[in-house]
Amino acid sequence: MPEFLRLVSPADALNRLLSHLPSERRIEEELVPTVEALGRVLAAPIAAPHPLPAFPRSTVDGYAVRAADTHGASPSLPAYLKLAGEVPMGAAPGLRLAPGQAALVHTGGMIPEAADAVVMLEDAQSPRPGEIEVLKPSASGQNVIALGEDVGQGEIVLDSGAPLRPQEIGGLMALGVIEVRVARRPRVGILSSGDEVVDPSVEPGPAQVRDVNSYALSALVREAGGEPVRHGIVPDQIEMLQSAARKAWAESDLVVITAGSSASARDLTAEAVRSLGSPGVLVHGVAIRPGKPTILAVAGDVPVIGLPGNPVSALVIARLFVVPVIRRLLGVRAPALAARLTARLTANVASEAGREDYVPVRLIVTPEGLAAEPVYGRSNLIFTLVRADGLVRIPPETTGLAAGSPVEVTPF
Amino acid sequence: MPEFLRLVSPADALNRLLSHLPSERRIEEELVPTVEALGRVLAAPIAAPHPLPAFPRSTVDGYAVRAADTHGASPSLPAYLKLAGEVPMGAAPGLRLAPGQAALVHTGGMIPEAADAVVMLEDAQSPRPGEIEVLKPSASGQNVIALGEDVGQGEIVLDSGAPLRPQEIGGLMALGVIEVRVARRPRVGILSSGDEVVDPSVEPGPAQVRDVNSYALSALVREAGGEPVRHGIVPDQIEMLQSAARKAWAESDLVVITAGSSASARDLTAEAVRSLGSPGVLVHGVAIRPGKPTILAVAGDVPVIGLPGNPVSALVIARLFVVPVIRRLLGVRAPALAARLTARLTANVASEAGREDYVPVRLIVTPEGLAAEPVYGRSNLIFTLVRADGLVRIPPETTGLAAGSPVEVTPF
Repeated sequence: MPEFLRLVSPADALNRLLSHLPSERRIEEELVPTVEALGRVLAAPIAAPHPLPAFPRSTVDGYAVRAADTHGASPSLPAYLKLAGEVPMGAAPGLRLAPGQAALVHTGGMIPEAADAVVMLEDAQSPRPGEIEVLKPSASGQNVIALGEDVGQGEIVLDSGAPLRPQEIGGLMALGVIEVRVARRPRVGILSSGDEVVDPSVEPGPAQVRDVNSYALSALVREAGGEPVRHGIVPDQIEMLQSAARKAWAESDLVVITAGSSASARDLTAEAVRSLGSPGVLVHGVAIRPGKPTILAVAGDVPVIGLPGNPVSALVIARLFVVPVIRRLLGVRAPALAARLTARLTANVASEAGREDYVPVRLIVTPEGLAAEPVYGRSNLIFTLVRADGLVRIPPETTGLAAGSPVEVTPF
Repeated sequence: MPEFLRLVSPADALNRLLSHLPSERRIEEELVPTVEALGRVLAAPIAAPHPLPAFPRSTVDGYAVRAADTHGASPSLPAYLKLAGEVPMGAAPGLRLAPGQAALVHTGGMIPEAADAVVMLEDAQSPRPGEIEVLKPSASGQNVIALGEDVGQGEIVLDSGAPLRPQEIGGLMALGVIEVRVARRPRVGILSSGDEVVDPSVEPGPAQVRDVNSYALSALVREAGGEPVRHGIVPDQIEMLQSAARKAWAESDLVVITAGSSASARDLTAEAVRSLGSPGVLVHGVAIRPGKPTILAVAGDVPVIGLPGNPVSALVIARLFVVPVIRRLLGVRAPALAARLTARLTANVASEAGREDYVPVRLIVTPEGLAAEPVYGRSNLIFTLVRADGLVRIPPETTGLAAGSPVEVTPF
């Protein structure tokens, strides 16, 4: 008996799912070397063990001075200073400036005690060894990075939930934090159903097809920071589907089931999801194309997502629902901001009011800018997405877009 | 002796470097399981070993028919057809439609021989067992995916140089291609120089700093598909720098050296790069901020990039020059299209005409849309980038942007 499809907007559907998940990360943390932590998400805040820089540094090649000694200096009336020495790189200056003294210092070198500014080489001259003439007044702090200017001691430099990019790896290294606590990768149990589906390593018999979804979704899960665990291909029989779903559910932080593509197979999926426990199915049917028969559920604390069996629908829907859930499980707090490319549509695209459409497009570089060419092909055809560079969202309030319209393309 | 800095625009600089590299990939290929090939780049084209789908499939739940039999059908004058059977999922239909016959078929099921269309369940009714009334005419091909509609046998479905995304992994699996030839990850030799630099695991002495660049760059290289190989920290002595650079050069597909930050240390880097061989230094000085003292060189076939020592400059410049070179080494052919976010600047940003500026910004979600807040901080301060979500490019023809201006932010 086909279930009544109450169609929910994609945004509402996602909110409904996320609102049923714990707001705090439940995934345990693990300690990894910082050098291997790219893309991982911090599980605990990092406080700076010391200030950065840990000593006042020069930003230029020049002379460390007491700024007051250069007051009123000009080319016609230079300030005469005695050269007290040179600051070696990577070693303490070993000197303290007395009034009227200067010290040669290189970019990145430590400012000697009692100095508070650096005069650039080109703003001074050395008429005699051991003496310099400063041609410009210097302000206190000029050309100096103060101790702790980047980061103060004890400052929280990175918060729990921060994804680690190259700059975070560098920043942690600067502080000597060579190991970090990160969220374990959420285990995403992936189940494909369908009597006609066989493993890709198998030669399909007549009327059989290879399992595309388990592998495309595994790759997407991996990209999003999850750990895909494939639970195989299950025939369209309710007992087998229920027991496979229960096993995946017990071992996973998130379960993704791709339904068989017939209405009856989809109903089986919904039934298997319902059998996992409460609160159960939260959304069954989303006002979106492709992907209308999407199921969003929570059983216990574990989110369960039922994706359409068509590989194009499955991947489009997984980007919209599976990826944000993985971010939530990882404890990422920053909003996901999708960068886009602006292009002009090369052809009319029809849509239906009240429904969000996602149209795969190929991007073409033209002298007039980027062109977005719709990739025609039904959502059963995985190579539709292979030929595409991104998706154009057709908002629900329109009934299509005309050729030549500017569109925003979210690249894959 | 400081070298004359001829400032080149960033685009010209990159083109000059790329034009000296072989246009064809020279990196050897390796065979990897498709399931582990996400993000890798194909080293050889893939031809479809069989058509996809390999048999004509129904896209709906319905009745496979000979379209001609439904000609002129309507609710008041339905076409009466005899039900010849049901097509099981995952098995050959085992029947051939005679004129006037139909067969029940599920979404994804094989179309029986002699059938050429599928009537949706809702467009037919079954008044008596073994008989259906079709209420609408059907066109040949309707609700059917033809054999080879996605991919024809022998068709080149993926070209050499294609990066593998989740959909490519799925598409390859659909074709039973469970292993693929990909370009080996280019080895990127990374060298940090500076008398004041120590390894992050070491407690720095007075006036010493930990090596940020080797690790931040390693992460960026890894993200771009390269294999970072750190060649350690080299003191600012020409013989040591030359011999370390030569060793890295001999073992790498690309060498990246971050210079010490003083003018003399930068000159040493340039000298060490020049000593590696011809054609040698192609660009020394780019009209960009941060990163003016960038060096782009080729020695033999190996590109060598000298980055400024300041970590912010090093990372910004690496995104502009190191990443495209890694793409070239991998054999990626598609142009790199940088997706962006549109935001409004929260403050005036000054720039200098003739120079491209890259300003780190933090993105803030506001009711009026995204706001881009410049992150102030000198380019010596790695946490400047940690606090930022992306970069705003200030084009060379402007002298800055006013608060409130719309800007395009390239996220990290």
